[in-house]
Amino acid sequence: MTEIPEDHPRYMSLVTREMLVKGVNDGITSMQGLIAQGRGEAFDYLIGEKTTGTAMRATKAAAAMLLLAERPVISVNGNTAALVSKEICELSKLIDAPVEVNLFHRTEERVGKIVKRLRSDGCITIYGDNPDRLIPGLSHDRAKASSEGIWAADVVLVPLEDGDRCEALIRMGKKVITIDLNPLSRTSRMATITIVDNIVRAIPNIHAFALEMKSMSPMELQEIVVEFSNAESLSRSLEDIAENLKKLQ
Amino acid sequence: MTEIPEDHPRYMSLVTREMLVKGVNDGITSMQGLIAQGRGEAFDYLIGEKTTGTAMRATKAAAAMLLLAERPVISVNGNTAALVSKEICELSKLIDAPVEVNLFHRTEERVGKIVKRLRSDGCITIYGDNPDRLIPGLSHDRAKASSEGIWAADVVLVPLEDGDRCEALIRMGKKVITIDLNPLSRTSRMATITIVDNIVRAIPNIHAFALEMKSMSPMELQEIVVEFSNAESLSRSLEDIAENLKKLQ
Repeated sequence: MTEIPEDHPRYMSLVTREMLVKGVNDGITSMQGLIAQGRGEAFDYLIGEKTTGTAMRATKAAAAMLLLAERPVISVNGNTAALVSKEICELSKLIDAPVEVNLFHRTEERVGKIVKRLRSDGCITIYGDNPDRLIPGLSHDRAKASSEGIWAADVVLVPLEDGDRCEALIRMGKKVITIDLNPLSRTSRMATITIVDNIVRAIPNIHAFALEMKSMSPMELQEIVVEFSNAESLSRSLEDIAENLKKLQ
Repeated sequence: MTEIPEDHPRYMSLVTREMLVKGVNDGITSMQGLIAQGRGEAFDYLIGEKTTGTAMRATKAAAAMLLLAERPVISVNGNTAALVSKEICELSKLIDAPVEVNLFHRTEERVGKIVKRLRSDGCITIYGDNPDRLIPGLSHDRAKASSEGIWAADVVLVPLEDGDRCEALIRMGKKVITIDLNPLSRTSRMATITIVDNIVRAIPNIHAFALEMKSMSPMELQEIVVEFSNAESLSRSLEDIAENLKKLQ
């Protein structure tokens, strides 16, 4: 990795970039994933490269929904694995949710490498390398799912999802929690809960909320979930960007 | 390349992405270049993926400045070469400006490949593979320049430049024309003229203006240049984004 001084004003952004380039070199991240990361960087810049109050409220609702879920599953792609593999495994254990590797540009080799990475980072139940179901309405490779994983889940946490797949999961009747820095994307609009934040901040935040709320009653958790409106949250995220644009000017 | 249907609503954006992935596979584009492309995509999306009136005015001023220049040079990096190599060579011939290859993540191998690509795409005078000067204030590899090229230029067209290098060229007393989709970037703020547009649209537009204005007198051209204010143009570009955000909502 290129050496980056810790006092650089954009330290985290630069480190994240290097982690993804390393991900490509390790065979975990796709080149298209690098472009997607760039898009995320631009939107992160526009929200001020910090977790907004709007994102924090969405994160809290997401944690409550995950704690209420009967069969929560965390979907992992190449960028997620390169950036927050350890944090995903910790969250997986805390909320008792298996992980499932799911790639937009699927190759079995890349799936294998990500499974290996997740295993060495402490994940216990990992699906994805042996899919036995096809999600309706998607092209073959992208439709692949595991009967014990995403296929049977009631709530799926899918950071950095693409629009088509998000829509297909919703059509299957699942609740979808996504992490997407673009509040205008189709994924953001389709998801049940969209956290407009950088994944490297959002996953630890979900973990912190879940830990804090683990002792709450289902009714208390349910209240947090129903109070949240995704449309309203996205609209606020756009206002956050507009506000920040004024400040940056 | 992945097959993309021509009627896809985001056809150009997807084709551009595939051209860059091909650029990496051909050894022309760096992986960091892919991330930079992603950032550009996000800002392009925010301006509506079309050339705004603001960008068109900046493009016209840029063409006038290039026609007025005594020693204009076009700086080419890995993304520029992957996306608009042919168009750069056509512009180069029209305005009688040599090109110089200049890379942020410089390797001699990549310089060589880009020089070869430019030559096969019709560029005649190409510098960069034999630099004999160092631009003051930059780290060694990024400082490299050719005495007959950028070093001696009065006007440099540097699409997709980084902030440090743009600043260093300005400090040398050169006029810098840049193409940058982020109106808030340091490059955008430092440059003499910033065209807030996608390079795949901007280079052909500069060409069209230069062709149209080639018969103008220096005084007429000068008038177009002095009427242009970069600060005002950037401020309008931000307003364009804010307007478009409202429409997208």
